[in-house]
Amino acid sequence: MDIILVGYGAMNQRVAHLATYRGHNIVGIVTPAEREHPYPAFQIEDDLPQADVMIDFSHPDLSLPMIKKNTGIPLVVATTGQKEEIISALADISTTTPVFFSANMSYGVHVLTEIIKYSVPLLKNFDIELTEKHHRKKVDAPSGTLVKLYDAIKEIKKNSYPVYDRHEKHTPRDDDEIGISVIRGGSIVGEHEVLFAGEEETIQIIHRAQSKDIFANGSLDVAEKLIHQQSGFYTFDNL
Amino acid sequence: MDIILVGYGAMNQRVAHLATYRGHNIVGIVTPAEREHPYPAFQIEDDLPQADVMIDFSHPDLSLPMIKKNTGIPLVVATTGQKEEIISALADISTTTPVFFSANMSYGVHVLTEIIKYSVPLLKNFDIELTEKHHRKKVDAPSGTLVKLYDAIKEIKKNSYPVYDRHEKHTPRDDDEIGISVIRGGSIVGEHEVLFAGEEETIQIIHRAQSKDIFANGSLDVAEKLIHQQSGFYTFDNL
Amino acid sequence: MDIILVGYGAMNQRVAHLATYRGHNIVGIVTPAEREHPYPAFQIEDDLPQADVMIDFSHPDLSLPMIKKNTGIPLVVATTGQKEEIISALADISTTTPVFFSANMSYGVHVLTEIIKYSVPLLKNFDIELTEKHHRKKVDAPSGTLVKLYDAIKEIKKNSYPVYDRHEKHTPRDDDEIGISVIRGGSIVGEHEVLFAGEEETIQIIHRAQSKDIFANGSLDVAEKLIHQQSGFYTFDNL
Amino acid sequence: MDIILVGYGAMNQRVAHLATYRGHNIVGIVTPAEREHPYPAFQIEDDLPQADVMIDFSHPDLSLPMIKKNTGIPLVVATTGQKEEIISALADISTTTPVFFSANMSYGVHVLTEIIKYSVPLLKNFDIELTEKHHRKKVDAPSGTLVKLYDAIKEIKKNSYPVYDRHEKHTPRDDDEIGISVIRGGSIVGEHEVLFAGEEETIQIIHRAQSKDIFANGSLDVAEKLIHQQSGFYTFDNL
Repeated sequence: MDIILVGYGAMNQRVAHLATYRGHNIVGIVTPAEREHPYPAFQIEDDLPQADVMIDFSHPDLSLPMIKKNTGIPLVVATTGQKEEIISALADISTTTPVFFSANMSYGVHVLTEIIKYSVPLLKNFDIELTEKHHRKKVDAPSGTLVKLYDAIKEIKKNSYPVYDRHEKHTPRDDDEIGISVIRGGSIVGEHEVLFAGEEETIQIIHRAQSKDIFANGSLDVAEKLIHQQSGFYTFDNL
Repeated sequence: MDIILVGYGAMNQRVAHLATYRGHNIVGIVTPAEREHPYPAFQIEDDLPQADVMIDFSHPDLSLPMIKKNTGIPLVVATTGQKEEIISALADISTTTPVFFSANMSYGVHVLTEIIKYSVPLLKNFDIELTEKHHRKKVDAPSGTLVKLYDAIKEIKKNSYPVYDRHEKHTPRDDDEIGISVIRGGSIVGEHEVLFAGEEETIQIIHRAQSKDIFANGSLDVAEKLIHQQSGFYTFDNL
Repeated sequence: MDIILVGYGAMNQRVAHLATYRGHNIVGIVTPAEREHPYPAFQIEDDLPQADVMIDFSHPDLSLPMIKKNTGIPLVVATTGQKEEIISALADISTTTPVFFSANMSYGVHVLTEIIKYSVPLLKNFDIELTEKHHRKKVDAPSGTLVKLYDAIKEIKKNSYPVYDRHEKHTPRDDDEIGISVIRGGSIVGEHEVLFAGEEETIQIIHRAQSKDIFANGSLDVAEKLIHQQSGFYTFDNL
Repeated sequence: MDIILVGYGAMNQRVAHLATYRGHNIVGIVTPAEREHPYPAFQIEDDLPQADVMIDFSHPDLSLPMIKKNTGIPLVVATTGQKEEIISALADISTTTPVFFSANMSYGVHVLTEIIKYSVPLLKNFDIELTEKHHRKKVDAPSGTLVKLYDAIKEIKKNSYPVYDRHEKHTPRDDDEIGISVIRGGSIVGEHEVLFAGEEETIQIIHRAQSKDIFANGSLDVAEKLIHQQSGFYTFDNL
């Protein structure tokens, strides 16, 4: 595929590397930064080169005008922030262009979420506890992915509420609480665990990311499929 | 409930204990053994007492004639061995009696199997590896539950084949192989793990049994539901 | 061995069961409760039968006078609460009697603590995080065993401080913090995990208890050794 | 530090990258390959530039003559294969030069081995089982690191023997057997687990490598220490 990258930060640099390795071509990058780049660089208002697909790991300030320009080139958006505006802008152009959006491009995390949604109704009498582990530099807690898992569970078990700290509680666990544990250390890329604990048995479902490449590769997997689709708004649920 | 136990080995002794704890009554046991028993003991040919349900953890030599006698009392069968004969005999009486059959009465193991069947098609490009851990005295390997998981996967990935030993192979892993690891030690009750290993990410699904009570409690959970059903052949899939 | 049990609550009932299974005899129990018992029952002031060892899982109100009576019979004390008084009373009689004390009779937990003390100085640049899992009814958090592990680590890394909740912190992890996660659900008997997280690698050390029998069996293992010792104060460190 | 790299394959390319990131200089590489290189390239017989340390991740055909040349520059050797010859050649020059050798440059794996050696005598009555997981392309099984762990255990429990496949055994586990499980899938960098399974409790010790950088970084950590040492033969045990 001939690919245009929107944004050229750490993630899209990784996409460029892995795309080349897979035999694709980076025909241009859209970036406001005026440094020297290993690929032809463009501003949003420029005429862009011919391409099969655009992959956007950037920032809403770049993503939103890029989407609204609607080049007709299939567009994969993985930018986080201003989610509603981005989805709405993508919906507008999806009548004429195939577009894809996900805030987490890891296919495994997507499947994890699906497995949890499938499991929760089957394990009604099991207590649910969530744990995530990340590197020592991560400042937000819990991770966005854990919040997404929690939301998916709460969608099914409406009375659920999160418990972040038990060390000053002196009461037994409630049916409706969902314990949330946040572990930080070293350079752990990302682990998410859902524990279902029942009478005399437990089921654990664990996703472990080994490197940030899963997000870069995830966007390429999506791009390879998206270019064969008709106009429309795609997510992991319908691609 | 008033319960008749068919067989009175380790498992049904545990069922008796837990049934009493839940407020049920054991009104009789069917057993060929002529020892002294804490409950009224009967032979198959005897008139049995009134009961709401029968729970059978025994042996095909006892189960098969007991099923064929068809007392009209709802019947939960957890006996392993001669599976086809037992299912066929149960099918025959299911027109007049509610019957339930499962070779593994743990609800968690049932759900594990369902989760795996749901996950495999979603994780087509992931390698699958199975591991089970049991106590040092277990003589069969791999466990029946692992075989059931393997069969469920092979039903979906038709070309799969098991690999039990890699220490003399000097070739990379095949797409179709499913590694099967058997760990034995101490008094581990039972752990089953399905590992999906992909590019830069893994998903693990682990079931851990804490005591054999899950099987006894599983049969009681089933019995409590079965007594409200119409005649028919029930399994975990339709109860 | 001929054994006298001090206290006859859940734990010593289990000791009685397992001791009999190992071929030992329960020659009496010391208990204030005036119910019917399966063994000869005594009060503290009574003449006690001949015995090789006494095992005390009770309450300081019973333990302290029992210790002070100093029968000369080797004494294993696993009672929790009033730790200083109990240790001091045991020290007094240890000149004439072999005595053993531990607040956690699980040999595995003792070894876990030793392994952690051995590992911490070797893994100076690794972040440490502690997690424990227990059943849904446990009211205290974190568990006593986790506190013991934390204390052992702090003894070595003097600047350590515990962090129980990160969900409102928005700063990277500190070198000196030790995250403590408490998970509650189902009937989990007890799991303790120490995670050492470094650059691109982690080491996890996990202890998992399968049933409360580890405490009962632990006391019997100790008793079998203590009866061959000379007078003195023994713990897991010197037995 | 000014560093000379012996060999310039995947590992030393990574060392170069990480060394630069740490602020060190690569002043030359010793390699028979006549391709273009980003650093001044030398043959063994050439005069080498001034340097503080040499790091050798190569092949015995290059390592052995390089060692024998004895430049007097501190030397870190991580080459595998012909272990005895390499150790003997290093010993010869260690009277005049500080030299370091390890077949596994991960500090964490070194510590894992030490922890296991410490734990085995404490857990005499526990069954030991070893498991390793690596990526789908690894052709040798079990891994060299697992063999090293097994050897360390056998040094202590002399009667141990490995069991690679239980699926056709129909006997209970032996006291002396050590089960060895090999799991292959995806891109797993490397996991090693030692399970101690006892009566009603288990202890697991798990090392997980996140990327091959642990080996490159390990060699740099060693180099930074070695340059301050006097002549001698160093390993992780005495550095």
